[in-house]
Amino acid sequence: MAELLVVGSVALDSIRTPFGEAADVLGGSATYFAYAASFFTQVRLVAVVGADFPGSHLDLLARRRVDLAGLQVSSGETFRWAGEYGYDLNEAKTVDTRLGVFADFRPALPSHFRTTPFLFLANIDPELQLDVLRKVERPKLIALDTMNFWIQGKREALQRVLAEVDAVVINDTEARMLAQEPNLIKAARAILGYGPKTVVVKRGEYGALMATDGRFFFAPAFPLESVFDPTGAGDTFAGGFMGCLARAGTMDEASFRRAIVYGSVMASFTVEDFSLSRLLRLEASEIEERYRGFREMMHFEH
Amino acid sequence: MAELLVVGSVALDSIRTPFGEAADVLGGSATYFAYAASFFTQVRLVAVVGADFPGSHLDLLARRRVDLAGLQVSSGETFRWAGEYGYDLNEAKTVDTRLGVFADFRPALPSHFRTTPFLFLANIDPELQLDVLRKVERPKLIALDTMNFWIQGKREALQRVLAEVDAVVINDTEARMLAQEPNLIKAARAILGYGPKTVVVKRGEYGALMATDGRFFFAPAFPLESVFDPTGAGDTFAGGFMGCLARAGTMDEASFRRAIVYGSVMASFTVEDFSLSRLLRLEASEIEERYRGFREMMHFEH
Repeated sequence: MAELLVVGSVALDSIRTPFGEAADVLGGSATYFAYAASFFTQVRLVAVVGADFPGSHLDLLARRRVDLAGLQVSSGETFRWAGEYGYDLNEAKTVDTRLGVFADFRPALPSHFRTTPFLFLANIDPELQLDVLRKVERPKLIALDTMNFWIQGKREALQRVLAEVDAVVINDTEARMLAQEPNLIKAARAILGYGPKTVVVKRGEYGALMATDGRFFFAPAFPLESVFDPTGAGDTFAGGFMGCLARAGTMDEASFRRAIVYGSVMASFTVEDFSLSRLLRLEASEIEERYRGFREMMHFEH
Repeated sequence: MAELLVVGSVALDSIRTPFGEAADVLGGSATYFAYAASFFTQVRLVAVVGADFPGSHLDLLARRRVDLAGLQVSSGETFRWAGEYGYDLNEAKTVDTRLGVFADFRPALPSHFRTTPFLFLANIDPELQLDVLRKVERPKLIALDTMNFWIQGKREALQRVLAEVDAVVINDTEARMLAQEPNLIKAARAILGYGPKTVVVKRGEYGALMATDGRFFFAPAFPLESVFDPTGAGDTFAGGFMGCLARAGTMDEASFRRAIVYGSVMASFTVEDFSLSRLLRLEASEIEERYRGFREMMHFEH
């Protein structure tokens, strides 16, 4: 079992879906990632919150043994995101974004974080992602996520960080945008050309695909009769994926495939309730049960 | 190896995609189905064409040993469909439909067709599908396809035929429409409640899923760098699916899963060119190669 470092956002989300709404609930890419990954390995978190951030939220992460030594508490307001979903839960509409203390976020790494073997650069400014890379000893595995905002506004910096990472975990729309290529298979290959050896494309209700040199692996999404709130599904996926790899400590194709399935398992729980609610009541046995479910759903004989 | 009967349309299609166009090319649900299935088993076809239908098209089917004794040639024009696709190849826009002799189509079954063990009722008026069922000895396996037009306009007849078939092969939009349920997993379960023991949902570039009592199987679409024309992909899928089952003659879960994968293999060839062009130059070895590709793309170890 190897340690896993995540740098990203901790936020307060306000969400409206056709099935209900929630105000100022715990969110953020690093939060979902860390909580999901904590089921697999020791997680270290670097992020910033404002003075208004409820201590009870930190307790939730601390109880999962997430090392919060890299969490800055700044005077000012915590990053807030408000979004809504229609019946097509694949796409969130951002209603409001208030960056607060996140606007001046500059990742600070406690010294014991600098030698973490697994690193996930969640969706933040690629300049900050580069900054983190300059502060750490080269990890065994580095993965990153990004979004349309950085692809459009900071492509040059993003290309530089892409050249230094091992894996990209990105959603399908952003993969197409990054590669400027509508065909997803071509887009994945194009992104491999930017540097990373592995591209993982998250496709929401259609699952995930992984492209490595000349090979593809496809996992469906777990069939759920009720998807309540997809917020955080992608970050939870990444947490399960990286957590599984860090736990195994191995980096062969078989390990990556198992990690894709564990990522899919973790994401399937997140969408069953608002915020981290479903993860908070998740048992390790449920993870294993759903993992076996994936085997059953994907298996066929010659 | 058991015989397989298909009742559906034989048409002349005019298609425009962002990558090219083709006028009055061979098309129709029964055509794609029969040609694909002919790689697996002996196919019998029931359809109607007009006096204008090129004999060379019939030769293509005859060369695949498709039994054309049930193909009526009526005075009048062959069914013509004109459609176009944007860059999102998942959805065809119908530009023009001229039913011609298809408007008065009444399936006539040669006597040796009446005892065919495998039957596929392609997308035609559910009244005609019921009419076929009254004319045959109960096959070992009956499957049907349908479309929005019949779901909206002939729901009552459609429900009656659904109660008599073993399997439904339908696309995702139509599954949701048929069940009046946006969640696809719930929709599949609802359709199982209408009578069939198996529901196969075609999801275009996202592959296919099969729902049986309490179990799901998911297959991705084959990763293609260039999708040229999706017309006929669904019918080709159904042809590979039913052809594989008829060849095996077995109807257990494992056989159905293999059939889903062979259906996906066949569909992946169809979309690589206009009309049946890619199928016409298809070798059996290519089918097996792509089937092995599916195993490789879906396999993971515990």
